[in-house]
Amino acid sequence: MQDQSISKLADKLREFAEERDWGQFHSPKNLAMALTVETAELLEEFQWLTEQHSREPDQEHLERIKEEIGDVMIYLVRLSDQLGIDPLMSAFKKIEKNRTKYPADKAKGSAKKYNDL
Amino acid sequence: MQDQSISKLADKLREFAEERDWGQFHSPKNLAMALTVETAELLEEFQWLTEQHSREPDQEHLERIKEEIGDVMIYLVRLSDQLGIDPLMSAFKKIEKNRTKYPADKAKGSAKKYNDL
Amino acid sequence: MQDQSISKLADKLREFAEERDWGQFHSPKNLAMALTVETAELLEEFQWLTEQHSREPDQEHLERIKEEIGDVMIYLVRLSDQLGIDPLMSAFKKIEKNRTKYPADKAKGSAKKYNDL
Amino acid sequence: MQDQSISKLADKLREFAEERDWGQFHSPKNLAMALTVETAELLEEFQWLTEQHSREPDQEHLERIKEEIGDVMIYLVRLSDQLGIDPLMSAFKKIEKNRTKYPADKAKGSAKKYNDL
Repeated sequence: MQDQSISKLADKLREFAEERDWGQFHSPKNLAMALTVETAELLEEFQWLTEQHSREPDQEHLERIKEEIGDVMIYLVRLSDQLGIDPLMSAFKKIEKNRTKYPADKAKGSAKKYNDL
Repeated sequence: MQDQSISKLADKLREFAEERDWGQFHSPKNLAMALTVETAELLEEFQWLTEQHSREPDQEHLERIKEEIGDVMIYLVRLSDQLGIDPLMSAFKKIEKNRTKYPADKAKGSAKKYNDL
Repeated sequence: MQDQSISKLADKLREFAEERDWGQFHSPKNLAMALTVETAELLEEFQWLTEQHSREPDQEHLERIKEEIGDVMIYLVRLSDQLGIDPLMSAFKKIEKNRTKYPADKAKGSAKKYNDL
Repeated sequence: MQDQSISKLADKLREFAEERDWGQFHSPKNLAMALTVETAELLEEFQWLTEQHSREPDQEHLERIKEEIGDVMIYLVRLSDQLGIDPLMSAFKKIEKNRTKYPADKAKGSAKKYNDL
């Protein structure tokens, strides 16, 4: 089975960009823009759905969502790689921080305490 | 050493949300909104920088960027988990698709062919 | 009564930027980023609300929403001004285009035909 | 000459939505999502351009930008109308607030003081 770790994805993207001589365009500023654009394309898939409906997309819709999630992942990993950041480690660190910020007993069932997961 | 795979991140987030009874708010529609908000906070870090400057953030700036990248990763993985999607696999599939769409010899050095990595 | 037209807003913003020597930062690229950031701050006001709840924000919430709408308007008008575009005229033109694209009798009550107002 | 005020745009959009029975989809939550999606489409027009290049788009590019600006304006005005907000008045109020926040003599030529126009 193929190992599909994030660092392997970063390697592939670096190689892909080098083959096309795209490093010149891949400043963190530009990649953050591209990441935002892809995220909005993902958002677009949900904009007219009810919340309940968004929990149960049909198969065709799910395929489009998968593609958009792939795009977001690609730019997030490429941006992280250009800055020497490990996105997974950043996520785990943030969770620890949020554990203190939103204690389970106080935040229970409240959308107000909801700034971050 | 701790294993920090994406599925482990998804597990942690699920547990975190369950402890706080937040499942009710975590519809894919709402999570896609939260992901967009976090992405824009990351974008904000770069908005007044030159491209060159964005390639060399100072240490303090880099720390903020790391946090924002952590937030984006968190919501991307949580959203994917709620829909049963593997974001890494989606990314690899998209790369293969783009390999055909942007052949290395034709896309070389061109920003026009730049819709997707 | 003060006339509060869009061109007057554009004038004020130009003056405001000139006084602070900010023209150098106000490339359309940067202004489009700032506009996106402000829009996401507006989006954040709605992210955990139900649709129904979003129709009836309380007074305090409405005040925050007003401020964010002001910010979006500011960057939209500043960006338009930097490119010599009249945003209101662009909006009216787009409506005429959409009138053909989504005929009232066919689009009735359908969210599918919903790409554009 | 046609009068093209914002309130007239709001009237047209209300009429357009009513003819298509779209009021049910036009919760502020959904409209804020649509506004974000349109803003990102505008951002996309600038993502691989240099700042300098973004100041001088060619005619064809300018036409696309105009259309996207029209879309952003449409959703901003429709969202404002659904909440009884005057976007222009909100913008003028925000400028007065920022005049205090960023005094001209202190903010001169600095991108650090740049959170808001």
